[in-house]
Amino acid sequence: MTEFQLIERLKPLLPANACVVVGAGDDCAVLDTGTPGAHTLFKTDAMVEGIHFTPETPPEKIGRKALARCLSDVAAMGGSPTVALVTLGLPPGFDPERVSALYRGMADLASRHSVAIAGGETTTSPERLFLSIALLGSVPAGGAVLRSGARLGDAILVTGELGGSLDGWHLDFEPRLDEGRWLAREFSPHAMIDVSDGLAGDLGHVLRASGGLGAELFKPALPVSRAAKVRARTGDLAKPAVAAALTDGEDFELLFTVASADAVRLLDAWKRRFPGVRLSCVGRVQERPGVWLRDPRSGLQPVAAGGYEHFAS
Amino acid sequence: MTEFQLIERLKPLLPANACVVVGAGDDCAVLDTGTPGAHTLFKTDAMVEGIHFTPETPPEKIGRKALARCLSDVAAMGGSPTVALVTLGLPPGFDPERVSALYRGMADLASRHSVAIAGGETTTSPERLFLSIALLGSVPAGGAVLRSGARLGDAILVTGELGGSLDGWHLDFEPRLDEGRWLAREFSPHAMIDVSDGLAGDLGHVLRASGGLGAELFKPALPVSRAAKVRARTGDLAKPAVAAALTDGEDFELLFTVASADAVRLLDAWKRRFPGVRLSCVGRVQERPGVWLRDPRSGLQPVAAGGYEHFAS
Repeated sequence: MTEFQLIERLKPLLPANACVVVGAGDDCAVLDTGTPGAHTLFKTDAMVEGIHFTPETPPEKIGRKALARCLSDVAAMGGSPTVALVTLGLPPGFDPERVSALYRGMADLASRHSVAIAGGETTTSPERLFLSIALLGSVPAGGAVLRSGARLGDAILVTGELGGSLDGWHLDFEPRLDEGRWLAREFSPHAMIDVSDGLAGDLGHVLRASGGLGAELFKPALPVSRAAKVRARTGDLAKPAVAAALTDGEDFELLFTVASADAVRLLDAWKRRFPGVRLSCVGRVQERPGVWLRDPRSGLQPVAAGGYEHFAS
Repeated sequence: MTEFQLIERLKPLLPANACVVVGAGDDCAVLDTGTPGAHTLFKTDAMVEGIHFTPETPPEKIGRKALARCLSDVAAMGGSPTVALVTLGLPPGFDPERVSALYRGMADLASRHSVAIAGGETTTSPERLFLSIALLGSVPAGGAVLRSGARLGDAILVTGELGGSLDGWHLDFEPRLDEGRWLAREFSPHAMIDVSDGLAGDLGHVLRASGGLGAELFKPALPVSRAAKVRARTGDLAKPAVAAALTDGEDFELLFTVASADAVRLLDAWKRRFPGVRLSCVGRVQERPGVWLRDPRSGLQPVAAGGYEHFAS
């Protein structure tokens, strides 16, 4: 059972109340907590040793990544992060110096984005370190960009470059907070998500949430990272660079859709506003479900119907 | 290194911002998120299989306890819980039916307190189940009852009965939300905390947070639970019932201080408002640091200077 299937099964169990504007299933929950003109974003994310980082990962980078993953989710709603809490599961005898280093990595990133760390707690985790971040953010009321708003004919765009993130980017990525806020304010994307499962998987999430639409991606337009290209040429586990860009995941770029009539104006404005960050128009939302890849030489082929899990198998 | 010492070490690292009214070190963080007349409470709490519950614990009770622990922290601030997020670390092959049961236990308790569960996420935890709850709550602005307000001469009171919680209460306890709100509104306690480490340990937290005060407890006034008395008479690991009441922990009762002049009026009003819940005046805040126990027969003895850890050794 995939996480997606599990969430679908659990959703009917979850009690709601008047605070909840958007519940389970988006990058963050969206809440109305009575702040005039604003909604509150609420997100948690956990990382486990051996799954999201190794015992050799420097603790500063573990802390940094844990917070950055949550910040990326707030960015994908067009919001601003405000306050975080930290939960640590520590093996017995874990070096307090490493805990401090972990917090330093988190605190450095938090400070740069004016995020407060208002506390946290530690508990015992016998075999391996885990950490969970709970993050609050703010977004103008009604301004949160959801996964569920993609429309037929929308242009599909993605920031940065994709694939090969395990070569380092997954620990050092910059959450696209400025970019997400600017996009939400200036171009009201119909749908947005951050790329954690891979372009194909996360686009699948958007399309399913938007009523079962599909997408056609244009292969030459995919912003394949240099790391993915190098990996494709070397190593026993090499996979084609395009496949890496579609499925590696942990890119933490922003994937969004806008009315196709706005795409050219957006690409121009982006270049002026964020000259150091690539923005690519990679395809278009269509009626036929699933994600399809158009190759000028070999034609159209299906990429993924159900997201990352299916494509990987 | 105890959690208390670790937090003291980490506190200077934590960035703050204008949202944070009370940061690390209380039952919840207190935030000003712009809601007129209200502050936001923010809390996370994690439970780990083998530490906070066993593989045999029914999953409904695991879910219930995880949320109840957080609700108890909100109760100890005099607040009302609003929205929770759930983070699950699941061993590979974990039965989805057990996950549903876990959520059901949580959802039942959430519904009874009008708390929404606005989503969550699952991740892989190879060896053992863990779950972490992030909870938001609300409290009138300036009305949160902190640990740090105890004053010289205050009466010390505690709800319910203490000790022997492992015989069942730790899974089934009722978070004292109505009681906490009523106390905050009607009697403005100077300091309040929920009893998770044991009366001696948690009173130690209050006294240290309140500028290094001390307390004298009156032994015959301690509300020793029946379970602690039964345990004291049976079993190889029996400890005196009074020691159990002071140190067992996981009682999740409210421990608070009020001006001694208010104590009798409060006890009377409590009996009318909460006839089914015991309230005991167990001692008084004094200048001499540490927690002291007065026994009418054997006189005064020190209980704990640094909380649970010291007393247990």
